[in-house]
Amino acid sequence: MPKITRIDHIAILVDDLDAPLSFWRDALGMEVTQVKDIPAEAAQIAFIPSGGSEIELVRPTTSDSGLAKYLEKRGPGMHHICLEVDDLSGMLAQLKSKGIQLINETPKLSADGKKYAFIHPKSANGVMVELYELPK
Amino acid sequence: MPKITRIDHIAILVDDLDAPLSFWRDALGMEVTQVKDIPAEAAQIAFIPSGGSEIELVRPTTSDSGLAKYLEKRGPGMHHICLEVDDLSGMLAQLKSKGIQLINETPKLSADGKKYAFIHPKSANGVMVELYELPK
Repeated sequence: MPKITRIDHIAILVDDLDAPLSFWRDALGMEVTQVKDIPAEAAQIAFIPSGGSEIELVRPTTSDSGLAKYLEKRGPGMHHICLEVDDLSGMLAQLKSKGIQLINETPKLSADGKKYAFIHPKSANGVMVELYELPK
Repeated sequence: MPKITRIDHIAILVDDLDAPLSFWRDALGMEVTQVKDIPAEAAQIAFIPSGGSEIELVRPTTSDSGLAKYLEKRGPGMHHICLEVDDLSGMLAQLKSKGIQLINETPKLSADGKKYAFIHPKSANGVMVELYELPK
């Protein structure tokens, strides 16, 4: 049986990084380990790990990506949560067999070699859920 | 300096528990350790721990609470994230000195003895952030 092992991160969509960093880093005192441009996702991401999980501040860098349109429509705020799974293909098959609506029916591969897929918020109480599997 | 030590939980607001449990427990296979009535919050909460953090499904049990009104206005979905802090009073003073808008300016006390306070989403990129401190 495929197994969820961890909450990997919470992604927060922002329209710039200055005000968010002054909150999460300067006011709350959390450590930002990295701010990275991810051209494949048309986004800049600030990584803020805390106790085995991570907060990610995601700033779209173009105006026509899915993220940019989501931000334009809903404003800044929580975007998705990401759960680590030990067998992504097995989990997607299990979810399909239970009638869960998937955005990605088969694993996608990120630039850094992680397999991931999104579950549709309709099947997850309005929450966008990402599943990912670390390279073995 | 007060310090954030961990992402404690992600709270997801739901209008019933059956469909959410069939997703998180039956489809994803996550373990629900407890379903608890919390009369003080007019809510029933299902606790789903995973790797040091927790997902909490929160179902309002009355129609006139703040949670119920939020649910009515926005529908099911992510409600807040909760961070553990080692010194809540110190952290609230630090946040105030940095101009962060607080919902609770001093710690509130939950029925089970935890000190907690909420930060206003206006100061946190549209995210409702709860801070809590375990009893010492």
